[in-house]
Amino acid sequence: MSEARLTGPVRIVGVGLLGASIGLGLRAKGVEVILADASPTHLAIAADYGAGRPAAPDDVPQLVVVCVPPDVTAAVVASELAANPTAIVTDVASVKLAIHDDLVARGADLSRYLGTHPMAGRELGGPMSGRADLFVGRPWVVAAHDRISYRDASVIDDLILDLGATLVELTPEQHDRAVALVSHVPQVVSTLMARRLIDAPHASVNLAGQGIRDVTRVAASDPELWVQILGQNSAPVIEILRGYRDDLDRFIDALDDLEAPGARRRIAEELFGGNTGVERLPGKHGVDRRYASLIVMVDDRPGQLAKLFNDVGDAGVNLEDLRLEHSPGAQVGLAEISVLPEVLERLTDELAARGWRIAG
Amino acid sequence: MSEARLTGPVRIVGVGLLGASIGLGLRAKGVEVILADASPTHLAIAADYGAGRPAAPDDVPQLVVVCVPPDVTAAVVASELAANPTAIVTDVASVKLAIHDDLVARGADLSRYLGTHPMAGRELGGPMSGRADLFVGRPWVVAAHDRISYRDASVIDDLILDLGATLVELTPEQHDRAVALVSHVPQVVSTLMARRLIDAPHASVNLAGQGIRDVTRVAASDPELWVQILGQNSAPVIEILRGYRDDLDRFIDALDDLEAPGARRRIAEELFGGNTGVERLPGKHGVDRRYASLIVMVDDRPGQLAKLFNDVGDAGVNLEDLRLEHSPGAQVGLAEISVLPEVLERLTDELAARGWRIAG
Repeated sequence: MSEARLTGPVRIVGVGLLGASIGLGLRAKGVEVILADASPTHLAIAADYGAGRPAAPDDVPQLVVVCVPPDVTAAVVASELAANPTAIVTDVASVKLAIHDDLVARGADLSRYLGTHPMAGRELGGPMSGRADLFVGRPWVVAAHDRISYRDASVIDDLILDLGATLVELTPEQHDRAVALVSHVPQVVSTLMARRLIDAPHASVNLAGQGIRDVTRVAASDPELWVQILGQNSAPVIEILRGYRDDLDRFIDALDDLEAPGARRRIAEELFGGNTGVERLPGKHGVDRRYASLIVMVDDRPGQLAKLFNDVGDAGVNLEDLRLEHSPGAQVGLAEISVLPEVLERLTDELAARGWRIAG
Repeated sequence: MSEARLTGPVRIVGVGLLGASIGLGLRAKGVEVILADASPTHLAIAADYGAGRPAAPDDVPQLVVVCVPPDVTAAVVASELAANPTAIVTDVASVKLAIHDDLVARGADLSRYLGTHPMAGRELGGPMSGRADLFVGRPWVVAAHDRISYRDASVIDDLILDLGATLVELTPEQHDRAVALVSHVPQVVSTLMARRLIDAPHASVNLAGQGIRDVTRVAASDPELWVQILGQNSAPVIEILRGYRDDLDRFIDALDDLEAPGARRRIAEELFGGNTGVERLPGKHGVDRRYASLIVMVDDRPGQLAKLFNDVGDAGVNLEDLRLEHSPGAQVGLAEISVLPEVLERLTDELAARGWRIAG
């Protein structure tokens, strides 16, 4: 393993999912990690999992990472700046401008602060879900401002690189607009779709398939956290929601009068625009474009999956990702194997030669 | 394999994904299948894949299954009823009332027709994506009416049961309301979200994560097909979209004036309603509730996955489903294994005893 860039120690305030994962990742690189949390239980769990050691009164951290909810982040950052006069302080909240402006209003020392936001996470929160590799390959945004020197900010670059993330530099405004579009508005759109289910007939919800499940997947969430996030990023979110609402109005009007001249064409254009929009996402249809995939039919007999992976290994191919589709009660499942594009053809030939049925 | 209920032969008109899959499924049960399609190429491919044999002039089918696009379904059903005076005829279009009403208007013989809709499908269409087990365990709706006798309708029950699906009886109106909610409106909602990406800044789309990807997954679709579907189910779709739009208006207003009394509470309630809605979907958060899952950490070394499956098999446990989460470049992946709930504890103990790290 390569040596860490950070000298440390790094003090982490708040050891939920993000804080614990940062601790685990830095410990894996041999960096000294100090943990603080308002909850003694969270602290104990995180320390037990190896995310770091509990804070001591005479600690002098090189870097402080504040990982608390967004509505108390600015206050905690200000307090940590004051309590650790030689440290650089950062936070990982999912809104940046509101926190920056709050710190300016408090007269905090921005020459030692730089806000960031790791774009990573899992459905299960809390320190027990922490993973050392949570950030590997994921974007980590730095909300750049001009009051901190390049040299002082480099310790935050080191944090991001030591955790294996991809550093992305944006202004606080650019960041907030971006997360409004790819995270906050989808949350609202998904939630409003889910609300249509509340009083729906039993017969309707029982026919639920991938359409409604995909659209509502992010809707089940922590309402209190999202009130904070949306409240602190309301301007960009409102702007996008208004555009969405206007589009929706036009769509309803066209659908309501299909025989009107151009109505069907307008609907078709709206739908085609969906395709155009999806094409702008990195990767095809949201799938990681770095990999190619093939689908192999796997009989529902003991040992078949193991045999498939043995054969993939024998072909000298590294399995990048896997999805198994197995309708309950079906005699056969479909294993979608993702590999590097350059090995796809050889792997297909070798598996077919060993009798595997390739579905697509 | 159990014997088929259907005597056959079954004539399939239109051998895209659904038609080809029905053919494959029936052939697997030993039922004679006749294929017809406007495209000689589709026909040849489907026959080559084993979905049935091309139609001959003297065929006398027991059952005709019309699997053509919704806008021509009624015409083809009427024509098949006339051309096969002893056959029962069904269709598989995703709208039912419009087709029923169209057939009534044409004076077609409804005593030999019963519309149905298999709730199954895959992202890739066409005969080459056909699967014999596409319908296994999936709902197949029968749009019941009172002009066909119980005895005559039983051949359609036999079709559904022979293909392993779960028969669900609804009126055409109940069906159309249901698919409006769980399929058609999610398509519109997803498409309108994707449209917000069209002119978005590069910096924004590059931060795309699971939120935007999940909400827009169904948005990339066949616009022409969806104009047909939405056009033939406009009333229920408009009703739900209007409810959605009104909710959205209220949400925007609350977010725009957060300091107004009750605004934050209103937003929190809207968000919590999302949780309530999702809870109505069968299975927890869209996940199949029939199974329990455990997450096992798998080192990124050759042969580790195969070893895991061998150990699961040695424990005498059947693997119902699998998802592998593998951040690119990470040293470790997470394998989420789904099994029957009653074996979860034993499997966890046995894998832990063999040195596997259980993550959750």
